[in-house]
Amino acid sequence: MEWEELARELSIQTDTKIVLYVIDGLGGLPKNGKTELETAATPNLDRLAAKASCGVSDPVLMGVTPGSGPAHLSLFGYDPLVHQLGRGILEALGSDVEVKEGDLVARGNFATFKDGLISDRRAGRIPTSECERICAKINAVRSKISDPEITLFPGKEHRFVARFRTTGLSDCLTDADPQKDGKPRIPAKAEDKKSEKAVAVVNAFLDEVVKILADEPIANAALLRGFSVQPTIPTMPDLFKLRPAAIANYPMYKGLARLLGMHVYKIGPEPADLFDALEAHWSEHDFFYVHFKKTDAAGEDGNFEAKVKAIEEADRFLPRIEALKPDVLVVTADHSTPALMHGHSFHPNPFMLAADTAMPDDVAAFSERTCAKGILGRFPSLRAMPLILGHAGKLKKFGA
Amino acid sequence: MEWEELARELSIQTDTKIVLYVIDGLGGLPKNGKTELETAATPNLDRLAAKASCGVSDPVLMGVTPGSGPAHLSLFGYDPLVHQLGRGILEALGSDVEVKEGDLVARGNFATFKDGLISDRRAGRIPTSECERICAKINAVRSKISDPEITLFPGKEHRFVARFRTTGLSDCLTDADPQKDGKPRIPAKAEDKKSEKAVAVVNAFLDEVVKILADEPIANAALLRGFSVQPTIPTMPDLFKLRPAAIANYPMYKGLARLLGMHVYKIGPEPADLFDALEAHWSEHDFFYVHFKKTDAAGEDGNFEAKVKAIEEADRFLPRIEALKPDVLVVTADHSTPALMHGHSFHPNPFMLAADTAMPDDVAAFSERTCAKGILGRFPSLRAMPLILGHAGKLKKFGA
Repeated sequence: MEWEELARELSIQTDTKIVLYVIDGLGGLPKNGKTELETAATPNLDRLAAKASCGVSDPVLMGVTPGSGPAHLSLFGYDPLVHQLGRGILEALGSDVEVKEGDLVARGNFATFKDGLISDRRAGRIPTSECERICAKINAVRSKISDPEITLFPGKEHRFVARFRTTGLSDCLTDADPQKDGKPRIPAKAEDKKSEKAVAVVNAFLDEVVKILADEPIANAALLRGFSVQPTIPTMPDLFKLRPAAIANYPMYKGLARLLGMHVYKIGPEPADLFDALEAHWSEHDFFYVHFKKTDAAGEDGNFEAKVKAIEEADRFLPRIEALKPDVLVVTADHSTPALMHGHSFHPNPFMLAADTAMPDDVAAFSERTCAKGILGRFPSLRAMPLILGHAGKLKKFGA
Repeated sequence: MEWEELARELSIQTDTKIVLYVIDGLGGLPKNGKTELETAATPNLDRLAAKASCGVSDPVLMGVTPGSGPAHLSLFGYDPLVHQLGRGILEALGSDVEVKEGDLVARGNFATFKDGLISDRRAGRIPTSECERICAKINAVRSKISDPEITLFPGKEHRFVARFRTTGLSDCLTDADPQKDGKPRIPAKAEDKKSEKAVAVVNAFLDEVVKILADEPIANAALLRGFSVQPTIPTMPDLFKLRPAAIANYPMYKGLARLLGMHVYKIGPEPADLFDALEAHWSEHDFFYVHFKKTDAAGEDGNFEAKVKAIEEADRFLPRIEALKPDVLVVTADHSTPALMHGHSFHPNPFMLAADTAMPDDVAAFSERTCAKGILGRFPSLRAMPLILGHAGKLKKFGA
């Protein structure tokens, strides 16, 4: 029996409340002997660690660096090696684009096409208002055609989401994106027989876009990547009998949460907005995913000091969560983003779980290396959800 | 998605270099309170441990004692419960015997057959030159027969490899070896329907050998064991995009390495020969498997003091590896061989991984019990390869 089947059988709805506070990209590597988290002053996290059960968790497999999608899936109790999601679908869901079964979606960029080459893949990062105007221009032409129904949804600057709606679309397509400036446009290619119709639809559309935008000086071509159809994945209400909410302010995380059946709130852009929303909706849910992004962004920038500051900011919000008295409070990350590596890494996540039912260990500070000595040991992130549900009294006894 | 499929998808070729220094049978059990490794003076291993990530690894499953084949397979990233290799094939490959698809090979002993009993399974350990003469005598008779084509390849003393070449051979055969002196010759038996032809071929040959060797006073019969056909297993260049080299001076390890697509160098018999070869071929590969055998041999002999000395010798060579500045340096074992147990055991292997991308822990000495407190925790040896590739920057990010 696999975990999902077991979860469906054992999970029960109760009044206990869970907060999963994800400090994105939290884990790091030492500079002058200390990691970002070890360097940061984190009195609140340390205080919580002293009474929590601590451990470290591997998002996918030891040694494997995850993208944000698989790292979050794992933390939410879904095997990322079983449920593989295209970036396009996450982007679409995070952008409030309605996606139905059978739709094909992709992430898009407007680009500058000159003398047969893509001279700028980002069309000089045109203002968002320009992106909206150009999407509208294309949609105006396309709206006259009912099949395939193709719609563009403007994003920030040069970015958009494309949705293709007709029968028989599949998503084993290569990106229609040269990846580098100074190269010709490249069409999508089918990676299997089933995707040939999708390739024909997509490539005909991309040629059409060049015609529609022929008089545009800067944004006069479109690139598409991360083609994906709506995946079939059981929801958290279904699997775990939760009434879950996502408190996140970046599209991808919101998209993933919506896909998993979480209620996704509209949240302002500041970290404080997260905690305002958490407090405002506290009575409405029993599971709250709170996503703190700044730490990851600083790690990606390779900015050790900024990451230290972001961690200290994440620490300062912790008392606002504690004041709500959740029955289970977990603080961890989706994946590590060491500033020294300028990107995601394979290092395990520090993890702590505080609950009346949790066994305190002798970890008295929250860090990668202290948590590695915690009572939870080293475990796959996929085991986080059973741990959380178990400590919250939301899993029945298995067997008699 | 399983690890092998994931490895194929994520692995990339880079310029980083990896050394996997396998100190065979390293782990032990305490005598007077200290294990062989704890007793040995290992200043170099301890110095490396102080900056490495440490842990302990289980070759197959906790509690399961592995043979050398499965223990190494696991360390090289192959699930030993999926890929089961016959000892015969390893011996054949390690002895430079050409094995083609469909060939059946086995390890052989010449034995003394007297009054209907095998009086000495090793034929008094005849000199290697005698073994060569007797193999030639049999091959001279067999070379006149083209089907089945049967060839013997002399090894050290009484040992040889037998290769059977015809159609329809399968390898579910019991050993044609009484295992003890003073018992009658026993024929191979088929363990499935498919192997009946192989049984007929093998047993007819063994009877023929007794006739051919009727005038030999000592080596006048042959015993065969470990029947195996060429297994199908993906190579390390294929799975991991490595250009791997094996620096080993014992046949079985070379055989396994060749099967996995490593370049196998001819190396002299002394430990120092390993490091000469490593230095000589440093520019030609990006993965070096260095196999130090003496520790295991001493453990098998139950010689605690000899194993301590062998560990100290392995320690003295470490600086020669470090001087080459590998990007990832792992020191570990295939399996444990406690002198107190006179053989392989199920105890986990001490493991350390040094790299710029590795998180140092507070393990400051390299031993079974210090490593068990390391940041890598306790993990299956099968996870060693993803860890190694990850730290070497040879795995792309999984998912977006």
